Amino acid sequence: MNTALTTEPSTDELCCEPSGRPVLSAVDAQDKARILKALSDPNRLRLLSIVKAGDTGGSCVCDLTEPLDLGQPTVSHHLKILVDAGLLEREKRGTWAYYSLVPGALETASASLLAL
Amino acid sequence: MNTALTTEPSTDELCCEPSGRPVLSAVDAQDKARILKALSDPNRLRLLSIVKAGDTGGSCVCDLTEPLDLGQPTVSHHLKILVDAGLLEREKRGTWAYYSLVPGALETASASLLAL
Repeated sequence: MNTALTTEPSTDELCCEPSGRPVLSAVDAQDKARILKALSDPNRLRLLSIVKAGDTGGSCVCDLTEPLDLGQPTVSHHLKILVDAGLLEREKRGTWAYYSLVPGALETASASLLAL
Repeated sequence: MNTALTTEPSTDELCCEPSGRPVLSAVDAQDKARILKALSDPNRLRLLSIVKAGDTGGSCVCDLTEPLDLGQPTVSHHLKILVDAGLLEREKRGTWAYYSLVPGALETASASLLAL
């Protein structure tokens, strides 16, 4: 037996809910916020700026400590946060680690703000 | 008596500093980080998304609490941070406050990531 029942919700009674509007999901918001949190520190922004400006195969920590007037452990801490967020990539060469921008990562973060 | 002394720093001796490269200043980094910090929370991103989607003259707090499943004091706290960062503007109408995007604010934040 094939009984078709159609029930339509009475949305007319809702007063405040912006039903049907496209809204950022909780999962997408977590993902975007995680990257923006990595970007929300002035020293990390300056590190990214220096790495971006020094497009010669990666920046060594020795390039990064002096302009920021920070100790190497502090710089390494900030660099790890940027690597974990997918903004920088790290390559070990001998004693030193070299850092470069992950291609497209800043562009993706930038676009995510326009697509809220 | 007018004595002109010209002293030029000997930059040739520096080994690691990326001298002459354009690098984000400390002041600019503070300004950018302040706005990115306001954007670095998932609930605040979702609030902005809802306000952006509801382009009908501003969103009331009653539009904002239900989709996020947060209490009104928490939502008001997040809204204040977004207003203070220059991302939302607040207009009082009778009992309720209505929030709308500051024109161009998200675009400016987005562009700031590309201009590091």
